[in-house]
Amino acid sequence: MKRVDLNADMGESFGPWKMGDDATLLKTVSSANIACGAHAGDPDVMIATMRTAHENGVGIGTHPGFADLQGFGRRRMSVPRASLQNSVRYQVAASVGVAKSIGAKVRHLKLHGALANMASEDDALARDLFEAALSVDPDLIVMVLCATAQEEAVRALGCSFAGEIFADRAYNDDATLVDRSLPGAVIHDPQIAGPRMVEMVQAGAIITESGKRIETSIDTICLHGDTPTAVEIARSVRAALEGADIVVKQFDGRIA
Amino acid sequence: MKRVDLNADMGESFGPWKMGDDATLLKTVSSANIACGAHAGDPDVMIATMRTAHENGVGIGTHPGFADLQGFGRRRMSVPRASLQNSVRYQVAASVGVAKSIGAKVRHLKLHGALANMASEDDALARDLFEAALSVDPDLIVMVLCATAQEEAVRALGCSFAGEIFADRAYNDDATLVDRSLPGAVIHDPQIAGPRMVEMVQAGAIITESGKRIETSIDTICLHGDTPTAVEIARSVRAALEGADIVVKQFDGRIA
Amino acid sequence: MKRVDLNADMGESFGPWKMGDDATLLKTVSSANIACGAHAGDPDVMIATMRTAHENGVGIGTHPGFADLQGFGRRRMSVPRASLQNSVRYQVAASVGVAKSIGAKVRHLKLHGALANMASEDDALARDLFEAALSVDPDLIVMVLCATAQEEAVRALGCSFAGEIFADRAYNDDATLVDRSLPGAVIHDPQIAGPRMVEMVQAGAIITESGKRIETSIDTICLHGDTPTAVEIARSVRAALEGADIVVKQFDGRIA
Amino acid sequence: MKRVDLNADMGESFGPWKMGDDATLLKTVSSANIACGAHAGDPDVMIATMRTAHENGVGIGTHPGFADLQGFGRRRMSVPRASLQNSVRYQVAASVGVAKSIGAKVRHLKLHGALANMASEDDALARDLFEAALSVDPDLIVMVLCATAQEEAVRALGCSFAGEIFADRAYNDDATLVDRSLPGAVIHDPQIAGPRMVEMVQAGAIITESGKRIETSIDTICLHGDTPTAVEIARSVRAALEGADIVVKQFDGRIA
Repeated sequence: MKRVDLNADMGESFGPWKMGDDATLLKTVSSANIACGAHAGDPDVMIATMRTAHENGVGIGTHPGFADLQGFGRRRMSVPRASLQNSVRYQVAASVGVAKSIGAKVRHLKLHGALANMASEDDALARDLFEAALSVDPDLIVMVLCATAQEEAVRALGCSFAGEIFADRAYNDDATLVDRSLPGAVIHDPQIAGPRMVEMVQAGAIITESGKRIETSIDTICLHGDTPTAVEIARSVRAALEGADIVVKQFDGRIA
Repeated sequence: MKRVDLNADMGESFGPWKMGDDATLLKTVSSANIACGAHAGDPDVMIATMRTAHENGVGIGTHPGFADLQGFGRRRMSVPRASLQNSVRYQVAASVGVAKSIGAKVRHLKLHGALANMASEDDALARDLFEAALSVDPDLIVMVLCATAQEEAVRALGCSFAGEIFADRAYNDDATLVDRSLPGAVIHDPQIAGPRMVEMVQAGAIITESGKRIETSIDTICLHGDTPTAVEIARSVRAALEGADIVVKQFDGRIA
Repeated sequence: MKRVDLNADMGESFGPWKMGDDATLLKTVSSANIACGAHAGDPDVMIATMRTAHENGVGIGTHPGFADLQGFGRRRMSVPRASLQNSVRYQVAASVGVAKSIGAKVRHLKLHGALANMASEDDALARDLFEAALSVDPDLIVMVLCATAQEEAVRALGCSFAGEIFADRAYNDDATLVDRSLPGAVIHDPQIAGPRMVEMVQAGAIITESGKRIETSIDTICLHGDTPTAVEIARSVRAALEGADIVVKQFDGRIA
Repeated sequence: MKRVDLNADMGESFGPWKMGDDATLLKTVSSANIACGAHAGDPDVMIATMRTAHENGVGIGTHPGFADLQGFGRRRMSVPRASLQNSVRYQVAASVGVAKSIGAKVRHLKLHGALANMASEDDALARDLFEAALSVDPDLIVMVLCATAQEEAVRALGCSFAGEIFADRAYNDDATLVDRSLPGAVIHDPQIAGPRMVEMVQAGAIITESGKRIETSIDTICLHGDTPTAVEIARSVRAALEGADIVVKQFDGRIA
């Protein structure tokens, strides 16, 4: 019996500003990556989102990013390595503790935005950031982008991890994402996203635009929460998976 | 054998800006109240300060305040109660987790600035904030201003606490502080501060300007870290206490 | 021929977070109060909003508030008077200069949120803040809440001002707003808001819930931009006014 | 008669945190680069610093940097070009307007930190940022690092500028600064800094470590304000210049 997790970024509102339809998405996904107040989220948003995730049986993840609210953590910054590690420690600590304060638990870590992109290209950086997170909570399952430097890092660390692919992005033959500026790079059609995910999960491989198969550990599928069709794509992917007898369930974490 | 703790606010630098001489004070105090990144401090400062405190055997405290960097948490803000509680949860969680990440432990909680002042006047507020902190870590010892609404709150909660008096402030007969604008309100002379503290600890009472004694639980003495004579007063108070055979040692926490 | 201005708060998005439908509202109002980056807005949002306002012939206003992004400037803060004045100077200066940089001009000032509420109750505060704004640009027309301490302040200063009433709020007999918690306090029905405004403008008076008339200078009507029915109410008020031969046009500013 | 300006960065305190000894330096320099609240400074600090500069007859400069308080604007960030320009517009506007509000005037612009470094290497960036600043106030004199891409940019723009060299940094033969990690890169000795500046100003050239002369327009000398010996070096450089009959006076701005 195949199984896979569905994850989405959440808790990205801030103060009076809303982002995404978390309440609805939390009925579809099995894991939620919840912002920690640095690139998005504030204590009210974090706690409310964690509470709803917990009530829906959705796994809670800490989702640290660059401390850059205006840029939403999407702008690369040249921060000294030790400072970056301390920032990750701080954000993970805040997540772990506020979850505990409401009787919930942080299960996994996922890096956000520019920090995630940088760690996908640089396994030493990924290792340093993952170690920083694990120094706060050694039981965290580290979510990594399949077949990137992030995956190399968790294999080197020997820590528990879950491999992730994107529901709505096309892949190049080297497992990188097709550039957003190219046609077909982003999949907007819920009717295409679902069957595509079924195919990859059943194959245990990323299937690239050219049809090439890259075998990898697909433990979770990333759904985006902030697009107009987010909820529709999420439901369609879940329905397609379940229609193909693939169980949607939180990952357990694997060790290389 | 009498004993008492000496505490000071620390970790109040931010980014490139330094405040106080933490390294020197950490050789004199037995407990450090370390800012959490909301009114002062950043992850680098927090972690460096905790590390030095830990190495010096100084007890680490979480020191949450209003999220108001420019105002240093000294400006009162009308924040909805639930938001204030969430902010305290977040700050305490960050402290607890980053301490753990470096092999240290947060022992106590102390409220900062305007938040502390408001909680000294309003026991319902104090209770709500202390409960928020304890929901993150129920083992925290809550440091309270002796004979204020903060003390009422810990007694009502039945939690572990430590009573605090000020080394450098004169008291009115109702246990409030003499207004800073009045002569003699702030004690700048290290030769006066020391003997005064010895007298109060030996008496187990606050001794007011008029000479009145208010019996209370003096577990810790607050030294200020950001004045020109801070280090000198700290050393003088410690020397005076030790000269009077009062042991300077971390409090254990008492339950009402 | 009667005339009146229609104003709304705008430029309240921040970084990735959108608020309100500024582009649509800018086709209906004649004046826009644009946030200055302290309680909302950022340089990108400010400049884009000013540009669109300018292209639509809508008068640009600077809209300073407390520097409290998470609280959206709606939480009262105890800030020393001189600091508040400096904050207003800074925000007004930023507005005036960026408007100039795109060939536009700031015509008016309106205080935001908690700062506006505090200034409505305290004419000395209102005067200090208006003076601070006018020290940056003495030609600003100061928008004031009719029949409040704000109006007293501009009359005392002898500066150019425009009196404002709310399209969607019921009034008490002392010209204060009916508390939001009471029934009928907020008018959500576009069919009611329009005729009500026509009646008040024609009467040159606030008409309270009890039917009492408070004569005042109605130069502009405040529409809210961040409610679900904002655009509908705006259009309905404009249509009702024009249907009653009241010209919708920017105020010129009056001197007491 | 040779003349030259002396400039230093100022107004870099923030809220409760002090940086540098502005009051003393303002008695020695002829131009002050005053932070705008993005990487340092706040409205209170800006206005107080401008007021003291104005009273001392010191020329006021706007000194925009990355909006990164914790990193003090020293960390490079990947910000979209249009956003960077808007940030510069905003900061310059704030400076110009608050100066006006106290009866003073901003004379010049100088980029700060990482933004200055990036603009020294990329003349298209420098041009875009200078144009953004000039769109707020076309009369600004643009201070540029001599013989860098910044100077190319002002020459291409045809705007008024002033060329700057460093009092305390050694130069390579291509006019770049000797890396801080190399011996002799930073000049700490006031007895060396003074005569060195006299020599360069008299030569109208940067004199590199190897003794090579690079002819350039030396209109101003940068003194650093945040080092322990800052005030001493500043006084020593001024004394040496005056001893060699070089007049210390604000630059007028030159056009290429």
